[in-house]
Amino acid sequence: MLDLYHAEPAANSLKSLIAIKEKGVPFVSHFVNLHKFEQHEPAFVKINPNGQVPALVHDGRVITESTVINEYIDEVFEGPPLKPADPYWRARMRIWTKFVDEYFCPALSFIAWHHMIHNITDKLTPQEFEAKVARIPLKEQQDKWRTAARQGYTREQLEGWRHQVRTSIERMEGQLGETAWLAGTQFSLADVSCYAMAGGLPRIAANLVNPRATPRLIDWHARMEARPGVQAALAMPNPVREVVEGGRSSMASMFG
Amino acid sequence: MLDLYHAEPAANSLKSLIAIKEKGVPFVSHFVNLHKFEQHEPAFVKINPNGQVPALVHDGRVITESTVINEYIDEVFEGPPLKPADPYWRARMRIWTKFVDEYFCPALSFIAWHHMIHNITDKLTPQEFEAKVARIPLKEQQDKWRTAARQGYTREQLEGWRHQVRTSIERMEGQLGETAWLAGTQFSLADVSCYAMAGGLPRIAANLVNPRATPRLIDWHARMEARPGVQAALAMPNPVREVVEGGRSSMASMFG
Repeated sequence: MLDLYHAEPAANSLKSLIAIKEKGVPFVSHFVNLHKFEQHEPAFVKINPNGQVPALVHDGRVITESTVINEYIDEVFEGPPLKPADPYWRARMRIWTKFVDEYFCPALSFIAWHHMIHNITDKLTPQEFEAKVARIPLKEQQDKWRTAARQGYTREQLEGWRHQVRTSIERMEGQLGETAWLAGTQFSLADVSCYAMAGGLPRIAANLVNPRATPRLIDWHARMEARPGVQAALAMPNPVREVVEGGRSSMASMFG
Repeated sequence: MLDLYHAEPAANSLKSLIAIKEKGVPFVSHFVNLHKFEQHEPAFVKINPNGQVPALVHDGRVITESTVINEYIDEVFEGPPLKPADPYWRARMRIWTKFVDEYFCPALSFIAWHHMIHNITDKLTPQEFEAKVARIPLKEQQDKWRTAARQGYTREQLEGWRHQVRTSIERMEGQLGETAWLAGTQFSLADVSCYAMAGGLPRIAANLVNPRATPRLIDWHARMEARPGVQAALAMPNPVREVVEGGRSSMASMFG
């Protein structure tokens, strides 16, 4: 029995959806609606006490953290390998997945958060909002919700994160000038992690990611989207698409 | 040929020194003196463009990031396995190493930074300091140096990091109540990562880590320090011990 709890095919949920689809492993999908705060409901917190998606349940054992889930999926199931056979390139792959987790993803996440949280919170009274936030298991996540919804982030913070996004784009473009995929000659979890974050950039940050500025990234992006596994992941149900698309168009100005 | 570039046996350098010593792999040690900013000198930046230790060079190929280095050492060399054989516990191990990198280590690092940076910077003129900082490859690291040396961190920031340290201690104590080692029944890279950060806590944060408050952590700590590999790592040359010890005694009040 394999169950994946995930949100819409974006960011960390997309990361694990791509891995599982690329690997071709059958699984039971459970959609967790972040816009309804379902990740903080008791039923889900029983599965992941941190109240975060994705979460994988395999034969009754829970695995959390999308990057760890992806290594697990690759190690446990049959299917095409998602890690380079050469340990050196496997290390390079892990430097990428770690870079995404610690640098690229948080920057994008804070920017998106800043611009999109009101789509979620504006329909709540302050009391309803506080009741939702009080249920969040991690203090750091509570702080993030309160700060973003109330005062927003400072210009300096936002500029720091934009710098991180630009640096991440440069770093990917540079690597793709040396190797066909981010961790060498073959598609790997490095590409999965980066695409899960960078997939939307040609649209929401077209001034930064476009055929003239980043030709290799655009080429890689097209090769990623031609993969059946990536297509299958992106085709997963997305009941919150309209809200997110609205937020994305307002995000576009962030990189303008 | 295997070369490890590392600083004194503490934090991320200690992490990789323990892994290599536990594995029993012969290597050439290169001491990089962080107190003399040697990690930002051109000779070292040629090895690791990020200007950070540790860095491993194996047959001419460079591997960076202590967590990635440790997985590499385990995968490439003979010796006792440092990862659980069961993929589920291997995933649990990676959740720990990731937790250390993203949560426990940054909190300790910022607190140490705040309290110890003046041991390093006070002997420099503002011009000398700025010249040193300007050579740091990563903008985020430059910001960290400037902020810590000039205005220091706010009470709120420091309290946030102290909260993270307390949470990390609780989490380790909780796990060690369920399993003998952090990732199950056998010693693993989870223990290596946590010990590299937590090893000094019974001394510098004795109010938080002591036989009454955290009996399992104290027991685990003793079992860690009884290991020949850990002892060999801790016995590596430490020309900056006096400065660090001075800083540590001033840090102790941070947790008081």
